Amino acid sequence: MIYTYDQLYQFTFQMFCKIGCPEAQATTATEVLLSADLRGVDSHGVARLSGYVRLWEKGRINATPNIRVVYETPSTAVVDGDGGLGLIVAPFAMKVAIEKAKIAGTGWVSVKHSNHYGIAGYHAMMALNQDMIGISMTNASPLVAPTFSQERLLGTNPIAVAIPAKHQPPFVADLATTTAANGKLEILQRKGMDTPAGWVQDKIGNPTTSADGVKDGGALLPLGSDRDHGSHKGYALGSIVDIFSAVLSGANYGPWVPPFVAFLEPDPNPVGKGIGHFFGAMRVDAFRPADEFKSHMDNWITRFRSAKPTQGNEKVLIPGDPERELEGIRMKEGIPLLDPVVKDLTELGERFGVKF
Amino acid sequence: MIYTYDQLYQFTFQMFCKIGCPEAQATTATEVLLSADLRGVDSHGVARLSGYVRLWEKGRINATPNIRVVYETPSTAVVDGDGGLGLIVAPFAMKVAIEKAKIAGTGWVSVKHSNHYGIAGYHAMMALNQDMIGISMTNASPLVAPTFSQERLLGTNPIAVAIPAKHQPPFVADLATTTAANGKLEILQRKGMDTPAGWVQDKIGNPTTSADGVKDGGALLPLGSDRDHGSHKGYALGSIVDIFSAVLSGANYGPWVPPFVAFLEPDPNPVGKGIGHFFGAMRVDAFRPADEFKSHMDNWITRFRSAKPTQGNEKVLIPGDPERELEGIRMKEGIPLLDPVVKDLTELGERFGVKF
Repeated sequence: MIYTYDQLYQFTFQMFCKIGCPEAQATTATEVLLSADLRGVDSHGVARLSGYVRLWEKGRINATPNIRVVYETPSTAVVDGDGGLGLIVAPFAMKVAIEKAKIAGTGWVSVKHSNHYGIAGYHAMMALNQDMIGISMTNASPLVAPTFSQERLLGTNPIAVAIPAKHQPPFVADLATTTAANGKLEILQRKGMDTPAGWVQDKIGNPTTSADGVKDGGALLPLGSDRDHGSHKGYALGSIVDIFSAVLSGANYGPWVPPFVAFLEPDPNPVGKGIGHFFGAMRVDAFRPADEFKSHMDNWITRFRSAKPTQGNEKVLIPGDPERELEGIRMKEGIPLLDPVVKDLTELGERFGVKF
Repeated sequence: MIYTYDQLYQFTFQMFCKIGCPEAQATTATEVLLSADLRGVDSHGVARLSGYVRLWEKGRINATPNIRVVYETPSTAVVDGDGGLGLIVAPFAMKVAIEKAKIAGTGWVSVKHSNHYGIAGYHAMMALNQDMIGISMTNASPLVAPTFSQERLLGTNPIAVAIPAKHQPPFVADLATTTAANGKLEILQRKGMDTPAGWVQDKIGNPTTSADGVKDGGALLPLGSDRDHGSHKGYALGSIVDIFSAVLSGANYGPWVPPFVAFLEPDPNPVGKGIGHFFGAMRVDAFRPADEFKSHMDNWITRFRSAKPTQGNEKVLIPGDPERELEGIRMKEGIPLLDPVVKDLTELGERFGVKF
């Protein structure tokens, strides 16, 4: 089933209003959530809407939070999200980072007491039209086993970095610090297919190619897959995201990060508040004149894009190319939703008296 | 052959003095270079000394540079290394970042006109005794092919992040953004062994397990190895390091980064000056009281270190554990050097009248 952006926008906006979000915040949350659908990160878009609502029903999301800066220096701040939707808390915090950068050159904001914030890239990209580099990361509930660990201790902990160019479209990297995203496992599960080797380990830590591996108590593997291929590097990167997002802010970290799904209870003895994010904004002209920087970015992008491709591949891509192309297509041709998602949203709408 | 730290220190220090480094700078360069040997990154230590000297002989390293800040805001600076040894330029720039952080909360320094700076981790660790998080990255001459590219366009572009704890030793991640380091290929070459799959592609971009693959015109692969295992993420990370280090500062980037080896000439049409680095320092108490942060780091480290290991593995390691343990051993028992390195250093010493 294919829906227009406007159809999904109206429904999502009304749902956020129904759970009590003020209108301006419902607008922000809708924009952030749907940017995932536009950019092809379907697992983080409207398919998650009912998950947010269930967390709200459990009292684990506050629809009218008092989001505020609780600690700061000229270039840093800690934001307390007051249990609000991450979709709202994150843009608030990114704006704080941008305002800090205007004066101090850079701004760095660590966030506690938040929830799932949608796609990392959206928040990083907020910096672009200010001629700033944007950085966004978040921790997440534990699905990933460190190298040599049977236990899941880290989330898929993404890092996004958005860098402006002049005539070229911006460089936008948005990557989970795992070999494969959990969403890819779900697709293979539906198709009854195995995963490539190196994505998953089973519940006692042996390699498996079962797409049910994580569901059955196993774990996703850090970027690099195994020690021989650098999984200790993916583990280190995921750890850095966890520490910047949560140990700096006072959120929960590692195995204590509360689960997104409402049917699992958070740890009764948390080490902090909610989940954590980390944002950065660096004014390009805090380093050199912006026009110089952006011209060299054009040169960088053009050179990499024109590299000779390997056999069977059409061209070398710049991070952000596939998502930007898809965004153009989906804005025009609509956004496809899988049948179970349509069913889930229809039921959600019926429950709250909003037509899907 | 095993040498004491003091033996290598004396020789290296005298060599740096011989090429004209002022005494204080020769001390710094020696400390930085040998920290690689102590921490087991043998490819970046004293084995490279003659390489630096050859670059100096070619006029590509300036032994008496005027290293200075050429652009700044409260939390940022650009440092011009004036063609000096990266081993000296990098600690200068990291100190600038630390001084900025003391006042603004964080400090971020991009560096141009530098050279190879030794191990990334050394510079990041300079922040630790200030209760700061240290970040260090550098670009390097192109040996790595982006995903889908036949051409080498990136260096092994490492990222190091050092995070202080309270009673636990610090968290120190220091990782090349490739699947395997070039140094590992050299070891396999000497043994006449193949590499694991996923480390290298040949000169037309096909997978190879030849340890000579890169020497023969192929390329190292980004962290992740191939598209199915996330190589586009390693490519994005290496690109971010390249852009922060060189496009922000005005150094050479991508395929224009000058080679470390003196027998290869730099590009006659450079896009910037020398190679680039990027450093960050974040005061922990710019986010929350330092003691709180460090106590939670102890908790983080203890929890991860006590995770149940997978079969055949003794324990889960914290980034920095293996290097710190080796440093203790090598400081006491000495540093082993391979025969070709001993021969190279002996010849170097003879040429300059310094006894090895």
